Amino acid sequence: MKGFASDNYSGAHENIIEAITKANIDHASSYGNDVYTERAVNKFKEIFGSDIDVYFVYSGTGANVLSLKTVTNSFNAIICADVAHINVDETGAPEQSTGCKLLTISTTDGKITVDGIKKYMHRVDDEHFAQPKIISITQPTELGTLYTVDEIKEISAYAKQNNLLLHMDGARISNAAVALNLEFVEFTKNVGVDILSFGGTKNGLLFGEAVIFFDKELSVNFKYFRKQAMQLASKMRFISVQFEALLTNNLWKENAKQANKIAQYLYSKLIDIKQVKITQKVEANGIFAILPRELALKLQKETPFYFWDEEKSEVRFMLSFDNTKDDVDKFINLINLLIDKQ
Amino acid sequence: MKGFASDNYSGAHENIIEAITKANIDHASSYGNDVYTERAVNKFKEIFGSDIDVYFVYSGTGANVLSLKTVTNSFNAIICADVAHINVDETGAPEQSTGCKLLTISTTDGKITVDGIKKYMHRVDDEHFAQPKIISITQPTELGTLYTVDEIKEISAYAKQNNLLLHMDGARISNAAVALNLEFVEFTKNVGVDILSFGGTKNGLLFGEAVIFFDKELSVNFKYFRKQAMQLASKMRFISVQFEALLTNNLWKENAKQANKIAQYLYSKLIDIKQVKITQKVEANGIFAILPRELALKLQKETPFYFWDEEKSEVRFMLSFDNTKDDVDKFINLINLLIDKQ
Amino acid sequence: MKGFASDNYSGAHENIIEAITKANIDHASSYGNDVYTERAVNKFKEIFGSDIDVYFVYSGTGANVLSLKTVTNSFNAIICADVAHINVDETGAPEQSTGCKLLTISTTDGKITVDGIKKYMHRVDDEHFAQPKIISITQPTELGTLYTVDEIKEISAYAKQNNLLLHMDGARISNAAVALNLEFVEFTKNVGVDILSFGGTKNGLLFGEAVIFFDKELSVNFKYFRKQAMQLASKMRFISVQFEALLTNNLWKENAKQANKIAQYLYSKLIDIKQVKITQKVEANGIFAILPRELALKLQKETPFYFWDEEKSEVRFMLSFDNTKDDVDKFINLINLLIDKQ
Amino acid sequence: MKGFASDNYSGAHENIIEAITKANIDHASSYGNDVYTERAVNKFKEIFGSDIDVYFVYSGTGANVLSLKTVTNSFNAIICADVAHINVDETGAPEQSTGCKLLTISTTDGKITVDGIKKYMHRVDDEHFAQPKIISITQPTELGTLYTVDEIKEISAYAKQNNLLLHMDGARISNAAVALNLEFVEFTKNVGVDILSFGGTKNGLLFGEAVIFFDKELSVNFKYFRKQAMQLASKMRFISVQFEALLTNNLWKENAKQANKIAQYLYSKLIDIKQVKITQKVEANGIFAILPRELALKLQKETPFYFWDEEKSEVRFMLSFDNTKDDVDKFINLINLLIDKQ
Repeated sequence: MKGFASDNYSGAHENIIEAITKANIDHASSYGNDVYTERAVNKFKEIFGSDIDVYFVYSGTGANVLSLKTVTNSFNAIICADVAHINVDETGAPEQSTGCKLLTISTTDGKITVDGIKKYMHRVDDEHFAQPKIISITQPTELGTLYTVDEIKEISAYAKQNNLLLHMDGARISNAAVALNLEFVEFTKNVGVDILSFGGTKNGLLFGEAVIFFDKELSVNFKYFRKQAMQLASKMRFISVQFEALLTNNLWKENAKQANKIAQYLYSKLIDIKQVKITQKVEANGIFAILPRELALKLQKETPFYFWDEEKSEVRFMLSFDNTKDDVDKFINLINLLIDKQ
Repeated sequence: MKGFASDNYSGAHENIIEAITKANIDHASSYGNDVYTERAVNKFKEIFGSDIDVYFVYSGTGANVLSLKTVTNSFNAIICADVAHINVDETGAPEQSTGCKLLTISTTDGKITVDGIKKYMHRVDDEHFAQPKIISITQPTELGTLYTVDEIKEISAYAKQNNLLLHMDGARISNAAVALNLEFVEFTKNVGVDILSFGGTKNGLLFGEAVIFFDKELSVNFKYFRKQAMQLASKMRFISVQFEALLTNNLWKENAKQANKIAQYLYSKLIDIKQVKITQKVEANGIFAILPRELALKLQKETPFYFWDEEKSEVRFMLSFDNTKDDVDKFINLINLLIDKQ
Repeated sequence: MKGFASDNYSGAHENIIEAITKANIDHASSYGNDVYTERAVNKFKEIFGSDIDVYFVYSGTGANVLSLKTVTNSFNAIICADVAHINVDETGAPEQSTGCKLLTISTTDGKITVDGIKKYMHRVDDEHFAQPKIISITQPTELGTLYTVDEIKEISAYAKQNNLLLHMDGARISNAAVALNLEFVEFTKNVGVDILSFGGTKNGLLFGEAVIFFDKELSVNFKYFRKQAMQLASKMRFISVQFEALLTNNLWKENAKQANKIAQYLYSKLIDIKQVKITQKVEANGIFAILPRELALKLQKETPFYFWDEEKSEVRFMLSFDNTKDDVDKFINLINLLIDKQ
Repeated sequence: MKGFASDNYSGAHENIIEAITKANIDHASSYGNDVYTERAVNKFKEIFGSDIDVYFVYSGTGANVLSLKTVTNSFNAIICADVAHINVDETGAPEQSTGCKLLTISTTDGKITVDGIKKYMHRVDDEHFAQPKIISITQPTELGTLYTVDEIKEISAYAKQNNLLLHMDGARISNAAVALNLEFVEFTKNVGVDILSFGGTKNGLLFGEAVIFFDKELSVNFKYFRKQAMQLASKMRFISVQFEALLTNNLWKENAKQANKIAQYLYSKLIDIKQVKITQKVEANGIFAILPRELALKLQKETPFYFWDEEKSEVRFMLSFDNTKDDVDKFINLINLLIDKQ
């Protein structure tokens, strides 16, 4: 049985391994000057249009931090949700790398609103206050919820009016696309997102993320920052071919669909267990739930998952492309067994 | 024909792909809390002894910068050769990440000496001068030469006397071990190296490097710096299994041997060409040579390689584990053909 | 009439100018190796005991940032109030200089509590989360309120138990000492403060602040960080003599007394005006009040002061050592006149 | 007797103290929004023309670092002489604050040339190499020599052609102006300098330096960087009035003239002493000389000065505005006395 600790507990999809194996011939120019990278970039251009810049990096933190660093000065501030990955799970990498302050908006569902942003806009041009430059939203959020297209539009409209850029942390963006039943472009470029961290690892790659700039003027310095930030892979073709495979024959969609579907299946089972209280809408592949602490601890001994909020005994279940109904059935049996024993 | 531009133009050794494929089952705990990582670390402990700390990172620049950052304060200085990779090929990543100044020693063969280090030790305790904290040497050097065990000992003895640490950039350390005909431990830990960047990518991995601390007290904070520097892989098992495979059945040695052997073979052919002037001892897998500029440019149109010093028309040939005698023969034919045409 | 915009709108006390003029003879060794600095440091040792380290810097932001930088690594976090000067008025200098994240506690009176700190202590040793290392409190707070000795004790006890250090931003520490009617040592060193930013500029100096380490082991690297952070004055004697004069014949106390006294006088007048609502306890030299927006704006045209919270129409009056009853009387007349006109 | 250790061993000129005393009345808006600052800026505009931006900072290191930081990204490089103050006397502040690498040119007289710069321009657009963005020259140099107008023109012409900016560290710029017998503008703005650190402290101020931008587009972000770098004085008027006084009635010129004149006088005496070998042209207020080590050490016990190069027994004498012929006569007597005793 595969657990629900994280979508990075999975391995890679077999097509990914196959693509790497096939690309493992001959010599190829390093650092991205190779045909594999060109092909992968073209796959993205088919999706988002040709007037974009695409860069591959090693990690999700790398994608986020470089997205932000490329467009900020050290006196700037970055506005995000309090639960944003950049705020709570990157060991201060955004601050250390950019020098910027993170201005956080407290949320209950992981989604920020224009009202939340506004309170940080009172001191524009005041040299004593870190100057907001970019808003970062996560889609789907760290709480498994989704911004609607209208919600993104509202934020991006405010951003444009106030000379702010809009970044989307799309570590699980494929899960969002499937859940929203939208093309990628419809809830990113078309609604005012300027820079996108496009996730690969959590949707079936071995490793590798992409950063996409919808305004090419913003990315002029990206290549230097990527190298300086130690995110430039020498044998780049092995990231590129993974993305090429992911974007071929809708592999990204099949993987995300499976994760989302199993999340819904797990959700449908959990709501029948009276000891379990679901705390967030289940819109993508994550489920947040409060379990009695005793039960949660016993369950954790059998199968791995993370506490989201220790004090509330709130836990997170994150479904992956390789999870199955069988995993869920066994998991539910396990819970029921533990409940019965109590 | 495979060229000699760089050992990162190669793909991965087939054993490496196989290891990844085998590890691509089930779920595994992320970020290094997995059995694959444990096994890979143990492989290193078999080599270097059990009282070490081993960490895997994505890239060579990552390995070097984190080695240095973990033991420095921003007011420190790092002493290295002028041709050191950390000085000329990492876009200032060491300075940006550590805040430290690099104090460089001018060399003709890539090797620094105690005399070179001494000139930076005049202002110890002077708050106006960046305080030297660590020496970084590269083995083999960026010029394809080797430090002897005695040369390393002399540097490390001076380092100890002066409260300096010693880092070795071993991006091609396997090539050094084979060339020196020594165990890794004999020219690292046993002779006073404190921190080692142990290269993987250039010797047949897809990606992945290791940082090894021979004094565990030095590494206390490494894990935090690794995450903050965006060098912590989520699906860590896929770096770990590569190292496990590299250190199994002497794969590292076979690969390095092949690269070194072919370098010697190429060298033996080049010295017979009177238009070619070899500029450095050929001790590992790199060859540096001055070619008539016209010839070099024509040759570069046929097969990729890098100019090392444009002004001198000095070029670099770097041999890889997957280069063969046949590659060399074709290459030499190409040169001779171009010479005949002139 | 002198307004109440800030205590840095004042000039310097005449004794300060006199001290500078007297010290302006002969040559003196630069960067603090002079007798004036020795004498000023000794003044601090008379106050705090001889087992301390004292350093002079240019500015309050410099004092705070260097206090924090000296004892943190870039992966650490600094815990402070949301209204802390380091959080809202230093343009992200703490983040940029230290690399650390600021973890803020929301407060109504500017004072943090152990409960607020605790919520950030759940992920100790988790490499994905910036690791709390130091708590920073401001005394008196940015809202003009005071921590009692017991409140500080409670925070420092928790800090000690959790391997956290305690920093006090004492930009207006003399006003606190006078208000608390305590010796400096009684609410700093004796109750567990580790590092103190001791303010000078706001209490009558031309410029200059001191950083005091109560644990000398913490300050080992301060001198290097001070120089690197551009806070080392070359003609240091001219900061030192100011502090010597401030600490002579209780000048610090006279100045702070006057500011506090006039604050109380202003407060006594304001509470009689029904349009004015005082929002914080008036414990030192600052007064916070909500005024009808129209009134506030008209008043601001006549005499300078700052809005603290534009939305609430809350303003700040900060009294200085050189403010007089006469200033207050004129100010109150001004308000009344404006009210009458409405 | 006043020694020749450094021009920052001096106090301030009496006019400077007088100006501060006069400005020490009433309240003035903080952080530079005051009439004193306006007047001081206007003084600079009289000298350099009205299309400039002028900012005051605390220290020379602050002026240099902020000049560089404002126009660089962290992946840039700064080209300077090996003996540049920014390279050897600022504890790595430029690297730590900007993230940039310093590319140094080895010189014998402190002056760099276009040939020296060129060797760093081979890897423009290569993302692995820190990209040169600005050249910094010091006038007069750290070795007491002067760039001629033509030499500066040659460097600035090359800079313009190669998209590099030109910064001048003018910590002792008044001494240069007097020595060159030129208006400030003639060897700065008019010959292609983009950013100027205009020194005050070493020419008779208590503290305070200015940064002047000859292209106002370059300074757009300066105010934020100044605050973040802790170089924004709250009681700014007290820096401003010093500069106003310095630029009034040619005080700057009188001070610099005196320092230069006394340097020439000392030089005329030293060349008669056969044990003393002058090592650099004496063009401004600094003299470099090799003395027998024994003699130098004995002399240093009597009067302070610095060794410039311990190995060569080369020392530096730096003359200040308040040094007199009498100081020199006594100093020469001292040397002769020590020589006689040997």
